[in-house]
Amino acid sequence: MIDVAGFSFNKLVILGVGLIGGSLARGLRERGDVAGARAVIGVGRTPASIARALELGVVDAAVALSDDAALQAALAGADYVLLAAPVAQTQPLLERIAPFLEASTIVTDAGSTKSDVVAAARAALGERVGQFVPGHPIAGRESSGADAALPDLYEGRNVVLCALPDNPPDVVERVAAMWRATGATVHEMTPEQHDRVLASVSHLPHLLSFALVEQILNSPDAALKFSFAAGGFRDFTRIAASSPEMWRDICVANRAALLDELDAYTAVLARLRAAVEAADGAALEAVFARSRVARTEWQEQRANVSAAADPEK
Amino acid sequence: MIDVAGFSFNKLVILGVGLIGGSLARGLRERGDVAGARAVIGVGRTPASIARALELGVVDAAVALSDDAALQAALAGADYVLLAAPVAQTQPLLERIAPFLEASTIVTDAGSTKSDVVAAARAALGERVGQFVPGHPIAGRESSGADAALPDLYEGRNVVLCALPDNPPDVVERVAAMWRATGATVHEMTPEQHDRVLASVSHLPHLLSFALVEQILNSPDAALKFSFAAGGFRDFTRIAASSPEMWRDICVANRAALLDELDAYTAVLARLRAAVEAADGAALEAVFARSRVARTEWQEQRANVSAAADPEK
Repeated sequence: MIDVAGFSFNKLVILGVGLIGGSLARGLRERGDVAGARAVIGVGRTPASIARALELGVVDAAVALSDDAALQAALAGADYVLLAAPVAQTQPLLERIAPFLEASTIVTDAGSTKSDVVAAARAALGERVGQFVPGHPIAGRESSGADAALPDLYEGRNVVLCALPDNPPDVVERVAAMWRATGATVHEMTPEQHDRVLASVSHLPHLLSFALVEQILNSPDAALKFSFAAGGFRDFTRIAASSPEMWRDICVANRAALLDELDAYTAVLARLRAAVEAADGAALEAVFARSRVARTEWQEQRANVSAAADPEK
Repeated sequence: MIDVAGFSFNKLVILGVGLIGGSLARGLRERGDVAGARAVIGVGRTPASIARALELGVVDAAVALSDDAALQAALAGADYVLLAAPVAQTQPLLERIAPFLEASTIVTDAGSTKSDVVAAARAALGERVGQFVPGHPIAGRESSGADAALPDLYEGRNVVLCALPDNPPDVVERVAAMWRATGATVHEMTPEQHDRVLASVSHLPHLLSFALVEQILNSPDAALKFSFAAGGFRDFTRIAASSPEMWRDICVANRAALLDELDAYTAVLARLRAAVEAADGAALEAVFARSRVARTEWQEQRANVSAAADPEK
């Protein structure tokens, strides 16, 4: 059993003990009182990832997804199950655990897209979909895997829950309590709202960042260009070192919202291109000045929120 | 007189004591032995910027650009003049100082574009253009002004010199020595090479970053989007807080190279858009994986270069 400031559970099963799942495990275990053993069970796709999570002490026990008996034993009496794998695996994972899932177990996920996850959950769980609360902790690093997991990854971060009409309110509240126990702030949105917002401020910037590195790689003087890249390039492309598999899945799963944002972005670029070609400095300066003000205000508000969340920082 | 490890001068005049000019002044004064007074003279456009640079101790004396007698006195016997203003001011500034410029004074600049600067210098200086060595220290911060100046801004950074056929070799070498005295590494390129490389790894990312903030601002749910923006957005848009005036001038001055890079980038984006629309995960993953490898290798090489430059870091 683990108790984190009044939020307690006997057993949490995490499917995918990488950065996201591993950070939840570490966040709860290292912030809470741990009594007894085997409170956090990791389920992995590969023997290497399971072994690594155990070796790092991120989980108490680890099980192979392919092992029927072990998976069933892991899920027996589980209070919570977290899916923390690339979003395309949502439906197969839910189908895989469905036969072993007890009615009292609450399932949630950490996927970066939500409309597709809701559809996958309905397809896999059918009438039992009320046990599943779609969620998304908005936190990450460009590193992936259990080695990258941090106990304070969710401290001061936002977690979005997209509660279904099928979810009993106390089930949603218990998932919210789990995330709050890691230091996160929980918000509710519809899946459509979530997907539009994240397409804009997360998925599109990732695509644009990957695209810049790709474009340089395609140019004949790529090596010269990379050798003179400096701080602006460094920050702009930090997210181009993110997991290709995860971002492939996100771009496909959220393609409708992503295409909307990409098309709106391309229209802005076309406007800026015209201003550059016409040497219209005034038009460029107006856009740059507006962006600078908005970006500076965003940073200040973010700093205020962080300071309020943790007055000692 | 200032002596920095064997590089010495009696008088350096800096036109524009902001981040770039101020950091050169601080870098030389704080790293070197200073004997006597008035070795670094700042020339400013506004009384406020001149007063601030003096107050901060970035320069020994400060002069208003509009003051004929003071400007002439400042330039009398100067060893070096650095232009550190937005690039559109290169020609007017050179025209302004030309009547007072002594034949033994070496002039250089810190502009982010070079083809236009060369043209401006030829127009302003005519047959005396051999006194002018075009240069670009590749360093910066999103903050601007003398308050943002740092003595170690150029430590371990690259400075590109685009020597003219008209420059005597010893004149180029003296400018190189000045930058090396700040801890920078000096490279030579043609103006065309410089502008193509910088358009790719600096000017284009800035335009793309400004464009993302502009696009979000244009959307009806901008406030909601900003409130869920996290670390990826933060790093991608750090450079969107850069000086609008400076970046306006760069985009106009380097528009030919910038448009080439922007068009190549737009072509990559169109390819990625098609893959997203077709839900072609394999095509997306291939691009993302290639970008991740290149970005990770770039970071490692950069870390190695930094470690070699300063083994104690």
